Amino acid sequence: MNEYKFKDIKIGMEESFEACITEEKMKAFREITGDINPRHNRENNEKENVVFGMLTTSFLSTLAGVYLPGKYSLIHSVEILFKKPVYIKDNPLTITGKVIDINDQFKQITIQFDIRNCKNEKVSRGIMKVGVTDE
Amino acid sequence: MNEYKFKDIKIGMEESFEACITEEKMKAFREITGDINPRHNRENNEKENVVFGMLTTSFLSTLAGVYLPGKYSLIHSVEILFKKPVYIKDNPLTITGKVIDINDQFKQITIQFDIRNCKNEKVSRGIMKVGVTDE
Repeated sequence: MNEYKFKDIKIGMEESFEACITEEKMKAFREITGDINPRHNRENNEKENVVFGMLTTSFLSTLAGVYLPGKYSLIHSVEILFKKPVYIKDNPLTITGKVIDINDQFKQITIQFDIRNCKNEKVSRGIMKVGVTDE
Repeated sequence: MNEYKFKDIKIGMEESFEACITEEKMKAFREITGDINPRHNRENNEKENVVFGMLTTSFLSTLAGVYLPGKYSLIHSVEILFKKPVYIKDNPLTITGKVIDINDQFKQITIQFDIRNCKNEKVSRGIMKVGVTDE
């Protein structure tokens, strides 16, 4: 886990990691949320199951909390634009974030992110504003 | 599960439901995402564990996919502003969404949402743009 503090953050810093969606994660997300929509629960046709969009963006929690800035992060806001549906066969996903702005007054950084599938197609993109605490 | 089609949606329609965060859901979210940030994993002090923000907003999947519009929904975009930290003792959360705009050209509706804790304090708010498919 990265432990960048506010003073360590520079514009242009970038972090990237891979994550896989599995049937087990689909089931766990369905149980957490109660989202029983059949679009994400096609029996006998698991390959056509559309992955929950909000499951793919749950990795933004990891992007901020583990990678950029890591330990001292607190997410203030998130804007997500979904571009393409994600299927389990599109594994792995690559989540990338880059610092595009630093706000000294609020000790807040702006991270531009995208999520790509295994064909390097952008499935979602957006920005996150993340506070960087001192401890 | 609601099954509103595009023609059924009117501005002002509102849906609301309650959801609980549990230690089990925190653990499941941590396992899904790999977000091992200690802010959300304080041993021996479970009451002070801050709930993952992106776990609380995973219920937006349910808001769109089960309630408004329900079966025929597909989330296009989400903007979330986190207002207050959430603790497990703040259960239950109440998730409310209201249709504030309808785009005929894109068969897309705009839903203004908020999430409140058990003290009726708004912990997050934002908007979601959701496509309403015909099947």
